[in-house]
Amino acid sequence: MEALLRAIKHFIPLSVSEEAIVAELFNSRRMAAGEHFLEEGKICRHVAFISSGLARYYMNVEGQEKTIGFNQEGEFISNFQSFVPAAPSNVSIQAVEDTELEVIGYDDLQNLYTQVRGGERFGRLAIEQVYLSSIEQLRSFYTDSPTARYQQFVAAYPGLVQRLPQYYIASYVGIKPQSLSRIRKRIAR
Amino acid sequence: MEALLRAIKHFIPLSVSEEAIVAELFNSRRMAAGEHFLEEGKICRHVAFISSGLARYYMNVEGQEKTIGFNQEGEFISNFQSFVPAAPSNVSIQAVEDTELEVIGYDDLQNLYTQVRGGERFGRLAIEQVYLSSIEQLRSFYTDSPTARYQQFVAAYPGLVQRLPQYYIASYVGIKPQSLSRIRKRIAR
Repeated sequence: MEALLRAIKHFIPLSVSEEAIVAELFNSRRMAAGEHFLEEGKICRHVAFISSGLARYYMNVEGQEKTIGFNQEGEFISNFQSFVPAAPSNVSIQAVEDTELEVIGYDDLQNLYTQVRGGERFGRLAIEQVYLSSIEQLRSFYTDSPTARYQQFVAAYPGLVQRLPQYYIASYVGIKPQSLSRIRKRIAR
Repeated sequence: MEALLRAIKHFIPLSVSEEAIVAELFNSRRMAAGEHFLEEGKICRHVAFISSGLARYYMNVEGQEKTIGFNQEGEFISNFQSFVPAAPSNVSIQAVEDTELEVIGYDDLQNLYTQVRGGERFGRLAIEQVYLSSIEQLRSFYTDSPTARYQQFVAAYPGLVQRLPQYYIASYVGIKPQSLSRIRKRIAR
């Protein structure tokens, strides 16, 4: 809970009584490696803060699993495209390691927005940040080579190269694992 | 100004005095077709509401112009990736038709967030909407064929097929204009 409060206070001040409200609205949950936070076809009804661990986002594209993103400790996970309109998700979210979460449901998030003085402001700033990172990903697909995309991944998530199976990273970059090996060798030289 | 107030009131209520604040913070501006709202390399310092007209977003990719998005009347334009951190933009925004805007600068938008009761809430809900459309675009690049991307474009912007040069649409879909002609003929059959 301490890490979550710090993450929120990065955006807005919280009084002691507001910290208690936050603690009341979020619930702790553990996921084992491989367990799903969200499965394709279901409605995403929660947002979670990762206290420790690592999750990946993936989709099925013509029968093939494509990894489209990662979140690690200190970040929020959700599929807003499913969460906001309460529509079936086209994305799955799965723990890659044993992961500890602080979870909040849709109605309780609306309560947080109204019961905490800076709640709406927190919502706006947090979603601005998520939005900027999504749009950077979109730009990258338009303009970057696989090598550039791999280098950006390493720069954005320096610790994750060791923590993730190489085929997840290759899928995220948009190439075959063999091609990723070649890129890594070329960069290492 | 009426259309802008309606757009804001789609998200939050506005009292008469708050309507006056909004009218004070936004300034009307006309752009001729071809004129730029934002040029690559400059910092995006404004958000604008399109009262009438049409704008496109484009980037230079290896010397080639790529159209990456459109906004029409009733929508907001900005490059948040430049606007929020005040960083040089990698995107240009250009009027495709003569366009009328209501424009607000960064500081005045912060004033709107604080001076209007539901200001932060408006900011959160508006950016949620923009974010959902960006992430849908991202998903589409991962998973959709050019034909599917064209059909989605037509579904999302039914009026724009007539208003846009075909090479902008082809660039947006990610194919050559000749391929787009073939796709259109196939769909028409």
